[in-house]
Amino acid sequence: MCAARIIVGQSGGPTAAINASLAGVVAAARSAGVEVFGIRHGVEGLFANDLIDLNVALPTTADLELLRNTPASWLGSCRYRLDDPSTNPTDAEHLLDRLKELNATALLYLGGNDSMDTIAKLSWLANKRGDEVRLIGVPKTIDNDLVGTDHTPGFGSAARYVALSVREIARDADVYNLKSVTFVEIMGRDAGWLAAASLIGGADLALLPENPLSLEELIGSIQALLAEKNTVVVGVSEGLRAPDGSLLCEQAQANVSRDAFGHLAVLSGTARVLAESLRERLGCKVRAIELSTTQRCAAHATSELDLTEAWQLGELGVTAALEGKSSVMCALERCSNEPYTTRTRVVDVANVANKVRSVPDELLDPAGTGANEAMLSYLRPLIGELPPLLPSLTS
Amino acid sequence: MCAARIIVGQSGGPTAAINASLAGVVAAARSAGVEVFGIRHGVEGLFANDLIDLNVALPTTADLELLRNTPASWLGSCRYRLDDPSTNPTDAEHLLDRLKELNATALLYLGGNDSMDTIAKLSWLANKRGDEVRLIGVPKTIDNDLVGTDHTPGFGSAARYVALSVREIARDADVYNLKSVTFVEIMGRDAGWLAAASLIGGADLALLPENPLSLEELIGSIQALLAEKNTVVVGVSEGLRAPDGSLLCEQAQANVSRDAFGHLAVLSGTARVLAESLRERLGCKVRAIELSTTQRCAAHATSELDLTEAWQLGELGVTAALEGKSSVMCALERCSNEPYTTRTRVVDVANVANKVRSVPDELLDPAGTGANEAMLSYLRPLIGELPPLLPSLTS
Repeated sequence: MCAARIIVGQSGGPTAAINASLAGVVAAARSAGVEVFGIRHGVEGLFANDLIDLNVALPTTADLELLRNTPASWLGSCRYRLDDPSTNPTDAEHLLDRLKELNATALLYLGGNDSMDTIAKLSWLANKRGDEVRLIGVPKTIDNDLVGTDHTPGFGSAARYVALSVREIARDADVYNLKSVTFVEIMGRDAGWLAAASLIGGADLALLPENPLSLEELIGSIQALLAEKNTVVVGVSEGLRAPDGSLLCEQAQANVSRDAFGHLAVLSGTARVLAESLRERLGCKVRAIELSTTQRCAAHATSELDLTEAWQLGELGVTAALEGKSSVMCALERCSNEPYTTRTRVVDVANVANKVRSVPDELLDPAGTGANEAMLSYLRPLIGELPPLLPSLTS
Repeated sequence: MCAARIIVGQSGGPTAAINASLAGVVAAARSAGVEVFGIRHGVEGLFANDLIDLNVALPTTADLELLRNTPASWLGSCRYRLDDPSTNPTDAEHLLDRLKELNATALLYLGGNDSMDTIAKLSWLANKRGDEVRLIGVPKTIDNDLVGTDHTPGFGSAARYVALSVREIARDADVYNLKSVTFVEIMGRDAGWLAAASLIGGADLALLPENPLSLEELIGSIQALLAEKNTVVVGVSEGLRAPDGSLLCEQAQANVSRDAFGHLAVLSGTARVLAESLRERLGCKVRAIELSTTQRCAAHATSELDLTEAWQLGELGVTAALEGKSSVMCALERCSNEPYTTRTRVVDVANVANKVRSVPDELLDPAGTGANEAMLSYLRPLIGELPPLLPSLTS
């Protein structure tokens, strides 16, 4: 192979930082003098031969800078579930054949858990077939639930948006001289990382999927807070579960649809269920706010660190590919909180795929606010400083 | 009276700019060497003698700068409905007596339509009694529905947040290779100014209360858009009405509560009602997003012009009071769009109270996107430039 050729795609839910990783891929490829092609809508674009020469489409440094600050998946995304090649290799064979036809040095796949599953499956078959193409995952997910990395690009920006919004919601709720409880619903299917960011924004409690919900304890905590202050704000993970393990939001939805991965496609209504359940017992103004998809792509409230790290992992994907690495995911390892330092590395993608990194017990505080000081120390550098506000007259 | 004493209060719903007006009041009072006291929770703090010496509480320029950038009503707010003094003068007499006991030169009341009603009623009685206290309204409302002023402080920041959020929601919705329609619900009880800001964010259609809704025409418009593109985004005013004049959101709410002013206290679900009504007919992915209270106090996405003008109107309130003006509201008059220039003035508050400034016909476009180019020219300077994004591959 005379010249290297990088193929890059984006998959899974969009974030505010996944295009920064794409910009990092293009910048590193350009700097190494190799070709870089983008596939539209993830592996669907590989099947359909829908490719873009990114050196042509994004010729200048200014283009890459704009791409870095543009939310969602610029190349388009997909939620295509690859069959397990050990039982049904058709899909994976087709994709590897396409990569061979394209003379691809590497496929870089920017995505979350399901995208790492795709890279792991392709890696398994490529290894079996003896294909030389390098298969590399670059992580992104606002849920921060990938194993093998300290955190995932996209999370810091979403967490910053959650912290900023919760802080503003709390100020908004506090203007009248009356008692109120506000439940703010935050994304996070299986892990409470993002909901914990509400504590940085001043939420009094964060209800994470990792903490078993006891309604009686929750009512007791809220009543104790209301005895001290007018305004109580509770960050609620959309994935919060009742003690029997069922999702709280299922109580609001007669028919819950599932996506191709068997996930619940629509998780919403958790805050609303709580508000409706507790309104009478709490005996004060109770409302539910759903941050919804705005938290996923809030380009106007990104964490600069997040965009920088997203870019770095995109660059690392290219470097690793050109060094001959394959079947790996690019990752961040935290060296210290203060000052915040990390190093990058690659990890075996087979150890990442289909695992969920829940919030570990040592960061939880089920009898307190939901998460402890160690969690706040973990979150703060990722979120960055919030602009100062004048202290509230009531706080 | 040897030294002037300004009393200032905040009332009605919070905004991201109402504290900038308060900061302007304090700055102007300080500059004029007069006392300035804040009342907590609007007129409730006047009844309850709950006052703060703002020269003591906010001694430095840095404090005022912080206050300017702090969302919601720092002094606290209320929704107290004053009885009409021509039929029941008790409340108004009580408040004017309190102002006399306080040796108040002026009461500056920062608020929306209902606050101007309070100032108008107090003015009526003060005039009848021969009280010398000056009664001055400083406008704020994200709804932009006050007459007598080109626009209201608070609106520009809310409109900027709406435009930014809708733009990001549109990018988020566009990542998969499928047809989708997203209804984004935007505040605005009786007027569509804020919903129109969704067009600046790239919404395809804006459904304003001023445009009578025809479901069949809406379906036709959306289907025509879907024939051309994958992703359709519709900004929906919470106050959207069915052809029979009923609020769409009432169809979702069996019991709608009303506040002390007889307004619907909770308007929500308009986007959800539309999504549920049209899902089957549109035959594609349809979702509803409610921006909720986050649009009201988004200090992290303010319009600089809005904060500057809010400050200026606070200053004007003090100047007008010291010049002996009373029964007025501070207002903005637009001189030109490009370059954007305004001048400030005061208007008779009796001509403001209890009127709603709907979007006039000459800014509407009921058969098109909802609002026309003249509306966009009106909105652009108030919202300010949005940070550039890389053009979408599909746009």
